[in-house]
Amino acid sequence: MIRPLLSASALSLAATALWADPLPSWNAGETKSAIISFVEAVTDPASETYVTPADRIAVFDNDGTLWAEQPAYFQLFFAIDQVKKLDASALTSDALKAAAAGDVEALLATGKEGLLEVLAASHTGMSVADFQASVAAWLDEARHPTTGRPYDAMVYQPMLELLVYLRDEGFDTYIVSGGGIDFIRVLAPDAYGIDEAQVVGSSLVTEYVLGEAGPVLMKMPDLFFNDDKAGKPVAINHHIGKRPIFAGGNSDGDFQMLEWTTSGEAPGFGLYVHHTDADREWAYDREGHIGVLNRGLDEGAEHGWHFADMAKDWAVIFPATE
Amino acid sequence: MIRPLLSASALSLAATALWADPLPSWNAGETKSAIISFVEAVTDPASETYVTPADRIAVFDNDGTLWAEQPAYFQLFFAIDQVKKLDASALTSDALKAAAAGDVEALLATGKEGLLEVLAASHTGMSVADFQASVAAWLDEARHPTTGRPYDAMVYQPMLELLVYLRDEGFDTYIVSGGGIDFIRVLAPDAYGIDEAQVVGSSLVTEYVLGEAGPVLMKMPDLFFNDDKAGKPVAINHHIGKRPIFAGGNSDGDFQMLEWTTSGEAPGFGLYVHHTDADREWAYDREGHIGVLNRGLDEGAEHGWHFADMAKDWAVIFPATE
Ligand SMILES: [Ca+2]
Ligand SMILES: [Ca+2]
Repeated sequence: MIRPLLSASALSLAATALWADPLPSWNAGETKSAIISFVEAVTDPASETYVTPADRIAVFDNDGTLWAEQPAYFQLFFAIDQVKKLDASALTSDALKAAAAGDVEALLATGKEGLLEVLAASHTGMSVADFQASVAAWLDEARHPTTGRPYDAMVYQPMLELLVYLRDEGFDTYIVSGGGIDFIRVLAPDAYGIDEAQVVGSSLVTEYVLGEAGPVLMKMPDLFFNDDKAGKPVAINHHIGKRPIFAGGNSDGDFQMLEWTTSGEAPGFGLYVHHTDADREWAYDREGHIGVLNRGLDEGAEHGWHFADMAKDWAVIFPATE
Repeated sequence: MIRPLLSASALSLAATALWADPLPSWNAGETKSAIISFVEAVTDPASETYVTPADRIAVFDNDGTLWAEQPAYFQLFFAIDQVKKLDASALTSDALKAAAAGDVEALLATGKEGLLEVLAASHTGMSVADFQASVAAWLDEARHPTTGRPYDAMVYQPMLELLVYLRDEGFDTYIVSGGGIDFIRVLAPDAYGIDEAQVVGSSLVTEYVLGEAGPVLMKMPDLFFNDDKAGKPVAINHHIGKRPIFAGGNSDGDFQMLEWTTSGEAPGFGLYVHHTDADREWAYDREGHIGVLNRGLDEGAEHGWHFADMAKDWAVIFPATE
């Protein structure tokens, strides 16, 4: 029997499966090994812990987990850049004036009230479509204040590889973020290979309004859902309807998502990205205004969760730029 | 050049595309032709109205569109059957007593207040997992009062074929129902081939509660989202993040969903299932307590929507039983 093409192709497949490294930007170590062992244990049909593809759900926080979040949430920089475009007459508060001046520290000093004013001025009173067009334009033009990169080039290369690896192994990969759902959907398909429908996030009330040019969905000032802490498992149930078996996060806002993921009957993998690399990224955990990780550090081990120590476990942080 | 296998396979593909009827339970006529013409126009790469697979989103109402809804919503029969299991001491109102007696008319006569009591007694105070287990058990045992069929055997065969046809042509098919999201998810995978994550519906507030045996998601008495009328486009944006290009419904509760679907830049198809067959199913539209269709009948034509006249367009209503 002569089937040279088939044989060659079978050999090539076997080579890929056996020898290719699915996570080349991860250094060898406990965390990388644990990820690969877990994926093999739930995808090998002969495994006692085999999980059917339909139930291979993986969920990831966004800020600080899939892309950077320092010196402030990127969505806040977007909001500030929108406020900068407003007429001076619209800058009716200290918070709006600080935003228009690009003074992040002064803005943060105005507290939650001030941030909500900036959010309202930049995220409401327009249609979802207009809002998303402005996000897309901003992503094209805006540059990160310290690295000078486009914001969507500040995604983590090792996490991109993890997303691809999981999808190649039959997982559906979702974002479950405290950030805005309408905002993240603009970048998720290109930046992460994640479809709009697989983005879960916080949201404002949206209203269906019939205008002269037809119906539009308007973004209103009231909060509809805060996708943080105990809200994350609730949102997972609401959007996905299944318990995930893999969850990645970076702060105590992800604690319940990891807890929910790893307390089902099926095996579950909890991953914390730990920001330990002040040279290549930022080093922070227990203190600060962003990405605070206390409970996760204290209780993660007893839950069997794994930590990606960025300095130790990641050979590369950001993708190479062209 | 001799490539017999390839040639045979190409021929077979062409045969399937050219001669197989993707909607065998639909009678020849305007509506069937319009569906097929639309699908061909958005899937042919040479077409001016070609739509990329990622944007081929189809949304369907459930009650009265994908399965029957008479003599009352099937979810109401589930609720009644749950109330029947309660202790007599728990039947503290006329509505609960009517439900426990299986007297649907008396229950409906207690109005919205009464229905909410029955909903609270049957749908809240338990975890999502326990609720869904009770729905699954009910689907196994319960039988429809007039046909004697299992409720999930009262799906519409022509609509099942339409779902399969659309998926074969690269569409993602979603349910967008006024019924309960946790309820429909129990039956959607087997009954419709629709994954839990592609079910959108009304929902109660859900709370993440850490109990002694671990975390659970508890169903609370307050309404979280009413997925009806103008709520449907809002929910579509919330769950899917894209405007659909195909929408099917059967009542004025679906008007805005069809309107939203057919007023985008891409071509959009609006389909109303019209209940005209008193012999094989039920005949109703402008009046009644369920599936009222007035505005859709009055304004559908000017929107270019299509009507599936069940008596005329459907050769078969329900799937053959084994
Ligand atoms: Ca985070
Ligand atoms: Ca309906």
